[in-house]
Amino acid sequence: MKAELIAVGSELLLGQATDTNSVWLSERLAELGIDCYFHCTVGDNADRLTEQITRSMKRSDLVIVGGGLGPTQDDLTRQAIATALGVELEKHDHVVEAITAKFSQRNRPMSDSNLSQALVPSGGEALLPMPGTAPGLWCPYDGGVLVALPGVPYELKEIFDTDIAPRLVGMIDRPSVLKTRSVKTWGMSESALAELLASTIERLDTDFEADTVATLAYLAGGTKGIKLRITVKAPSEELADARIQREQESLLEILGSNLVFGFDEDTIESVVLNLLEELGLSLGVAESMTGGRIGAQLTNMPGASKSFRGSIVSYATEVKADLLSVTAETVVSTEAAEQMAKSARAVLGADIGLSVTGVAGPAKQDGVEVGTVFFGMASETKATSIKVIFGNNREQTQQLSTIGALNDLRKWLLSGDYR
Amino acid sequence: MKAELIAVGSELLLGQATDTNSVWLSERLAELGIDCYFHCTVGDNADRLTEQITRSMKRSDLVIVGGGLGPTQDDLTRQAIATALGVELEKHDHVVEAITAKFSQRNRPMSDSNLSQALVPSGGEALLPMPGTAPGLWCPYDGGVLVALPGVPYELKEIFDTDIAPRLVGMIDRPSVLKTRSVKTWGMSESALAELLASTIERLDTDFEADTVATLAYLAGGTKGIKLRITVKAPSEELADARIQREQESLLEILGSNLVFGFDEDTIESVVLNLLEELGLSLGVAESMTGGRIGAQLTNMPGASKSFRGSIVSYATEVKADLLSVTAETVVSTEAAEQMAKSARAVLGADIGLSVTGVAGPAKQDGVEVGTVFFGMASETKATSIKVIFGNNREQTQQLSTIGALNDLRKWLLSGDYR
Repeated sequence: MKAELIAVGSELLLGQATDTNSVWLSERLAELGIDCYFHCTVGDNADRLTEQITRSMKRSDLVIVGGGLGPTQDDLTRQAIATALGVELEKHDHVVEAITAKFSQRNRPMSDSNLSQALVPSGGEALLPMPGTAPGLWCPYDGGVLVALPGVPYELKEIFDTDIAPRLVGMIDRPSVLKTRSVKTWGMSESALAELLASTIERLDTDFEADTVATLAYLAGGTKGIKLRITVKAPSEELADARIQREQESLLEILGSNLVFGFDEDTIESVVLNLLEELGLSLGVAESMTGGRIGAQLTNMPGASKSFRGSIVSYATEVKADLLSVTAETVVSTEAAEQMAKSARAVLGADIGLSVTGVAGPAKQDGVEVGTVFFGMASETKATSIKVIFGNNREQTQQLSTIGALNDLRKWLLSGDYR
Repeated sequence: MKAELIAVGSELLLGQATDTNSVWLSERLAELGIDCYFHCTVGDNADRLTEQITRSMKRSDLVIVGGGLGPTQDDLTRQAIATALGVELEKHDHVVEAITAKFSQRNRPMSDSNLSQALVPSGGEALLPMPGTAPGLWCPYDGGVLVALPGVPYELKEIFDTDIAPRLVGMIDRPSVLKTRSVKTWGMSESALAELLASTIERLDTDFEADTVATLAYLAGGTKGIKLRITVKAPSEELADARIQREQESLLEILGSNLVFGFDEDTIESVVLNLLEELGLSLGVAESMTGGRIGAQLTNMPGASKSFRGSIVSYATEVKADLLSVTAETVVSTEAAEQMAKSARAVLGADIGLSVTGVAGPAKQDGVEVGTVFFGMASETKATSIKVIFGNNREQTQQLSTIGALNDLRKWLLSGDYR
């Protein structure tokens, strides 16, 4: 199957927005073993969009159009698809109902233009239920299928994963099975990882056990750490699973669980929350420089309330003293971090306390350099702290501190030192 | 002048890299007043690259190819350009010398393959001096010019700014100035905005005061609200500024400051913090379902500490009772929201309290439906709350509540009702 992507939006051609949708879709297609040959970006212009869709259908079996499904005059994708396919647009009653229900659910007035989102090129299908107010479209054509998705990233992702990917998997005629596994690391640079794994990479070039091929790629995930992606091509499902398992274990043995915090869909917050639940421990947080990011990250997970009690965001120094009993002369110090962790336990009624205090910048604080951060951890009987130095970039320091603190808590819990 | 961009590299089609070069080039072209009609991404494949270049030359006067100028077998741009133009590649002696000098300057061994970078399509020009080891190429064709730039971002940018932009400026018929202004809104759907602005859009089609042209675009920013972007093309800087100012005032008059929270680089957090500072008020937050997101968002801003005291993230119900004195039977209610806002003031020693309590899901809480959220606000003498219903998407409800609460606080402060 040959795929190509069309991103729609004049803002992309003006350099006012980055086309992250195509990056995400490309990664997903690669995981499904579908070759993507072209990305194209077209503005909000009916003729050029129709021309591009027509050309793409000629040379590809799968054309995914992202964007231009909104309700305004700017949104031309539906009409362009109909023109390219040589069909009319039809209003589908069940889509009208779904859109009307969305608006009444949100208590928002609906305008007539919203009903343009219920138009579907004849012969095509609107994908329901929809995450926003625009359904994705699935439009088969002679020799392939054209998919249209809303440009809003979470809507595009949800529709692709829920409705599109399963259909594509069913359509792929593949002699071999492709499987991937992500191994998620935190705390080591890409080049240092590459050195540790040099002999593994060399082995993979010649290790074709049971006709399987394995490759290893690094995906720098910024504040999500570095992902190692194992990709295995094998003659059968079973052989693929066996090989991927072997490679995963080999990586874990080389890197160890201090570096590897999880696999595939694991996130640092899901791993920490699962660990707390397994150990039967609750968590209270005291954070200053991270401003609430640790609580925000933990509560990404549904069910966080099983272990997460809450957080005291003590941004002002007086709040550290009043609520968290910090008496240290400087609030960015080992003593302050440990006191904050202890008080987080006590004030929030939790078994374990985690704290972050630091200087995000732009200026020094109490003589402490920008980028200096302390993580504190406390249990009923133990307390400890860790000092880390980050750079001058405020946003980066806040984000790295959030993940760093959660990862150090993970290691502390795993080690059993909190007992 | 009609331009289009071609990005070359299989890693882009695999989703392993983001095409930041095209974003940067698009912005530069827009600043120069050159319309860019297409972006295309092609992998390291000779046929597809040649096909794309041929097509692009037919429909555009300026084709900029980024990437594929390296010394390896993967690097196919030079040959593809020659094939598309129907000419041979010629080795230019002064480029050979420049490359040789680069290597000896860096004390690096040079391989024969590096000399492939001295090949130039006949009739074209290699641009020297070069920042790396690949010169940019300037290849005129009947009706336009094809530019090739190395894919390494700093090389691409340096060659564009030094060699390409000045030539393009000289080629543009009527130098016009392009300016943009973003008007940021919260609380109304794109379609409802479009209805409010229908007559404005109609007027812009025929309003060419002082030879200026203004257009209006909607950019759905998800959890950043909807941005309206005014773009003005004018014969001079002064006329552009005057026209953009007129259009901004016209929008503000139609939409009002309840909907419009800021302009250009303003964010909801920067606007709220500036307003608090102007009014000489400090802020304390109590948030449950948002898990710390309000504090996190406010502390995106350096200097947030001037007004932001901190936040109590009361995720567990007992924390709401213990720390925030919430006695309401259900913790997702008007009473609970107001009590949380009052306690946030008191506990954190702030002038103004802001609270969020709600049900993010996945399950109902105390009989309250998923998606139900209350914002509370309190001053020394007043307290109020607002109920909002969101959908079933947990992440979306958390993010929309964060911005929604900050925006309602903005409106409350602006109205003076807190006094």
